[in-house]
Amino acid sequence: MALNLTQKIIKDHLVSGEMTPGAEIALRIDQTLTQDATGTMAYLQFEAIGLPRVRTELSVSYVDHNTLQMGFRNPDDHAYLRTVAAKYGITFSPAGTGICHQLHLENFARPGRTLVGSDSHTPTAGGVGSMAMGAGGLSVALAMAGEAYVIAMPKVVKVNLTGRLTGWATAKDVILTLLGIMTVKGGVGKVIEYAGPGVATLSVPERAVITNMGAELGATTSIFPSDAATKAFLTAMGRPGDWVELTADPDAAYDEVIEIDLSTLEPMAAAPHMPDRAVTIRELAGMKVDQSCIGSCTNSSYADLMAVSEILAGKRIDPTTDLLIAPGSKQVLKMLAAEGRIDPMLDAGARILECACGPCIGMGGSPVSGGVSARTFNRNFEGRSGTQDAKVYLVSPQTAAMAALRGEFSDPATWGEAPARAELPENAPSIRHLFLTPPADGAGVEIKRGPNIAPLPPFTPLAATVAAPVALKVGDDITTDHILPAGAQITALRSNIPAISEYIFSRVDAEFVPRIKKLGKGVILAGDNYGQGSSREHAALGPRYLGVVAVVAKSMARIHRANLVNFGILPLLLADKADYDRIPAGAEIAIRTGDITPGGTVAMTVAGVGPVAVKNDLTAKELEIIRAGGLLNLVRQARA
Amino acid sequence: MALNLTQKIIKDHLVSGEMTPGAEIALRIDQTLTQDATGTMAYLQFEAIGLPRVRTELSVSYVDHNTLQMGFRNPDDHAYLRTVAAKYGITFSPAGTGICHQLHLENFARPGRTLVGSDSHTPTAGGVGSMAMGAGGLSVALAMAGEAYVIAMPKVVKVNLTGRLTGWATAKDVILTLLGIMTVKGGVGKVIEYAGPGVATLSVPERAVITNMGAELGATTSIFPSDAATKAFLTAMGRPGDWVELTADPDAAYDEVIEIDLSTLEPMAAAPHMPDRAVTIRELAGMKVDQSCIGSCTNSSYADLMAVSEILAGKRIDPTTDLLIAPGSKQVLKMLAAEGRIDPMLDAGARILECACGPCIGMGGSPVSGGVSARTFNRNFEGRSGTQDAKVYLVSPQTAAMAALRGEFSDPATWGEAPARAELPENAPSIRHLFLTPPADGAGVEIKRGPNIAPLPPFTPLAATVAAPVALKVGDDITTDHILPAGAQITALRSNIPAISEYIFSRVDAEFVPRIKKLGKGVILAGDNYGQGSSREHAALGPRYLGVVAVVAKSMARIHRANLVNFGILPLLLADKADYDRIPAGAEIAIRTGDITPGGTVAMTVAGVGPVAVKNDLTAKELEIIRAGGLLNLVRQARA
Repeated sequence: MALNLTQKIIKDHLVSGEMTPGAEIALRIDQTLTQDATGTMAYLQFEAIGLPRVRTELSVSYVDHNTLQMGFRNPDDHAYLRTVAAKYGITFSPAGTGICHQLHLENFARPGRTLVGSDSHTPTAGGVGSMAMGAGGLSVALAMAGEAYVIAMPKVVKVNLTGRLTGWATAKDVILTLLGIMTVKGGVGKVIEYAGPGVATLSVPERAVITNMGAELGATTSIFPSDAATKAFLTAMGRPGDWVELTADPDAAYDEVIEIDLSTLEPMAAAPHMPDRAVTIRELAGMKVDQSCIGSCTNSSYADLMAVSEILAGKRIDPTTDLLIAPGSKQVLKMLAAEGRIDPMLDAGARILECACGPCIGMGGSPVSGGVSARTFNRNFEGRSGTQDAKVYLVSPQTAAMAALRGEFSDPATWGEAPARAELPENAPSIRHLFLTPPADGAGVEIKRGPNIAPLPPFTPLAATVAAPVALKVGDDITTDHILPAGAQITALRSNIPAISEYIFSRVDAEFVPRIKKLGKGVILAGDNYGQGSSREHAALGPRYLGVVAVVAKSMARIHRANLVNFGILPLLLADKADYDRIPAGAEIAIRTGDITPGGTVAMTVAGVGPVAVKNDLTAKELEIIRAGGLLNLVRQARA
Repeated sequence: MALNLTQKIIKDHLVSGEMTPGAEIALRIDQTLTQDATGTMAYLQFEAIGLPRVRTELSVSYVDHNTLQMGFRNPDDHAYLRTVAAKYGITFSPAGTGICHQLHLENFARPGRTLVGSDSHTPTAGGVGSMAMGAGGLSVALAMAGEAYVIAMPKVVKVNLTGRLTGWATAKDVILTLLGIMTVKGGVGKVIEYAGPGVATLSVPERAVITNMGAELGATTSIFPSDAATKAFLTAMGRPGDWVELTADPDAAYDEVIEIDLSTLEPMAAAPHMPDRAVTIRELAGMKVDQSCIGSCTNSSYADLMAVSEILAGKRIDPTTDLLIAPGSKQVLKMLAAEGRIDPMLDAGARILECACGPCIGMGGSPVSGGVSARTFNRNFEGRSGTQDAKVYLVSPQTAAMAALRGEFSDPATWGEAPARAELPENAPSIRHLFLTPPADGAGVEIKRGPNIAPLPPFTPLAATVAAPVALKVGDDITTDHILPAGAQITALRSNIPAISEYIFSRVDAEFVPRIKKLGKGVILAGDNYGQGSSREHAALGPRYLGVVAVVAKSMARIHRANLVNFGILPLLLADKADYDRIPAGAEIAIRTGDITPGGTVAMTVAGVGPVAVKNDLTAKELEIIRAGGLLNLVRQARA
């Protein structure tokens, strides 16, 4: 039977389950990655499992999210990550080496391999044909322990690319266009697989832009074939041996097909405050831009920054605009420096930041009050920039550079000739010696644990009856940034659940934490697409710690839903979305949990309203996890 | 009459007063500089004075302290500074261009000119023979308004340099040695003037290291002659016309002479937690170093970083150590990049930070808990690094680089050959186009005022009787970091006195703010050298806002004492230091302020103790300022 690319990789890694869309499948995982903001918790969980060494082909721990080190907590986390990596056989990438996805693409991602990473943009590696999925830290810990990774068998969407990009249109404009078509909910339960003659016109770094920001579609992952361009990229990275050819069978079937003619695309932006609010830059012409930021796992490659350097060369940014540039990796920075391409950036007035996530996750670089920021990043959620009333437009590096020069958005027709696409040198300089390779035997390694690194709090099994008031009622598209903001201060608490829980929903409702503490327990009532955005499991761990027993929503985002399950919070869906309006904040809810069956519908009692039907899309396994009080309890029971 | 260098410049700028040590003199000020952390307040004060344009030869506003932009307050401050500069005729240096003192040395500092800067390390410009003094923001605001700057005529200390530096000894080791000799109190009321045949062996960047860290002596300023080396430096900077020869008369008299034979020096450190705890690196051999930080206004020049690059070339830092490098200016970074000297740093595992103050002021880069950090900075006060229990050793760039490579301090005898001193290229690349030059007429410029930029609170005149309890009793060497910590969170509040006052003494006594708020007013009782360290006037403004009416101390640091005067707080000195022990915290104190005369002694009544004699070293003018409730009140009265 003819298979598409996704099905081929799944078939090759299938441990159990049927390859029928929606069915639960378990996959063998070849590689894992973590970043520091989610990694400390992942490794605390791996430690709790009790194995002497990871069981993957390769596991890498990157430090890229919080590299500011404002106080002891952050460097203590880095020291913990470094030593825990050495002890358990994990490769360690120190702070400042670069952004996890950029580094993984350059150094480790392989066609046909599975990768689970505790970061929602892990699908970046789909640019070389890896099946790379974002997950909560606990899922990554279990993958490191050699457990299969369980997902619902995805539907596969073929995005058929034709033509080639022209003028100022870039890979970023491809994914912004697709987001406009599919919306941030359009990818749920699906893999986005790129095919068609347009694929060959895109380099791997361009493909990685597209798979990276595919995360904003809510997709399980995105993937490109592995072809001659993949071979050229891996060769430039000094690892031609990692290449294998990998494409869909010519007559493979897909669940859905979307056509994109690359030659029709033009520079785009995602308007505030959602990545799917696609508009053309043309439409924005004349809008003052107070800041441009270039970088992030989406747009910080050599080719991206070469284009920026060429646009800036010999010019000066508008004095009322600020331009921040954070290269994606030291390899990128080395290449730019070697070719004299940093100089034009400095001369134009750009600020060069450390190779890290930086402003993309609100780690500095906030815009002025009420300001417009043109950013090459992947998310523009309200307040994520650190400035609550800022307006963030997600754009290509070329567009961001032009906005900085002119101090405003302008019609690309007035930009002149677009810079040529820079090709990677045949032998790009390696920075692989900067990774710390673990010793063959880590038994003697002492783990450094600073005073802020707290053990995981224990969680009790699910009660026979869940009875709790609606502690918070929120609307549609609540992101994990709403549930738990990022930023240096809060991210520094990622290894301390009691401390970080004080910030749960702090930007949405400052009274939430005192209220649920007083109540002792509570239910979250939410609209559509609850929990979209990053993979941070603290957005489930924190609520669980505070006493959240169930989330009742119209619909939920994939990774966050999995995190709720992993920490024993019931993820329930309103059978009739109209019931959302009938349930007020504060209403007492009761659910007999013994009645819940996988995929079944039960009536929950809502005081003053009556019975309300709630369904679920849980598998038997997931229900078992929730009943146990979370996956870690279950794994411990199994190993006891 | 033969004059020393200090006397020559003072004579040339004397507006009023007698040049007798200790007498009040008023000096014409040619140049001013501000940085962002003190600058917002300085310009709010300049605005309050009500002039249309600055009256100096040159005023420059630098943004270097807080460039992180964690939230809207910080970028709003930058926008305020940029627009207020354009309006009033001030040159503006945007965030990321570099550190104020490095930039001022490269671009603006001139032999024989007076400079007042709202930063304690303003004496850096003494490296080219400028008489450069740190001051509170209000003093700078008044200097910009064309008012003379009032100080006590300093004593002049001749530091007679002989011989030349050998091996691994550097300029940093000169000043660390001098700090060991003179202590952090040894320079009070003095100018440190360098002379002797050793001067000619030092380049301007080396001299600037020495004058910069002369601030830690508590000196009024430090200064080098302007000679052939000065001419070479100014020529390399593209401004040979700024050079004039300037030396002491051969038979000039000095109040004190200290001999230093450069050829006897060796690598030194200042041990925790005071810059005068000088020890040799030899003595520290074997001590684990967890972090090295290279940069700051003390050690971030081209020559410093060239030496670092040479030391690191072809090597890898110890994996248990972290190495942070922040170049002092974009000029330095451009030169390093052009010569391929960034590459060896990256390959060695160094992290390159933005050109700014960074970790030196606790703006990121904190060490691990209990860690040892080798820093090329100028202050190692407890907790200033952001990690309360870290141990900071102040060292040269060469020593910091070697510590990073080895992961520990080691005997310099084992370091091999020291790198040659890099000479500046004859024509260093200019970055002067990055400064924003103000328009000839700023009347039409609109000042951007974010919501955190609060007007100055009004202060009432001094009461006839000051009656208040001792709200806090502290020991010796209380720094302005103790009074008001730095760091991104607090520094972001520098333009909002009510908000920042919540942090006064927060690291010393968390109960201080609630206590004095309850009391309504209070007196600070302190030991020797109260208020040493930075020039931040918020350390006086905040206490004044909270109700501090007087500081009674054994002795006080110069700039902070001036700030107390400027904001109407009585700076009183115990006539008998032994009385310090007799006065308990909480004791009610009463002083009839009408009895206070310049330099006179009065008895203050201490409940339960009896009368205690307090003296003062106030001039008539200063007493008038305090009686008016601060200098701004007085200036407004005069102009009304």
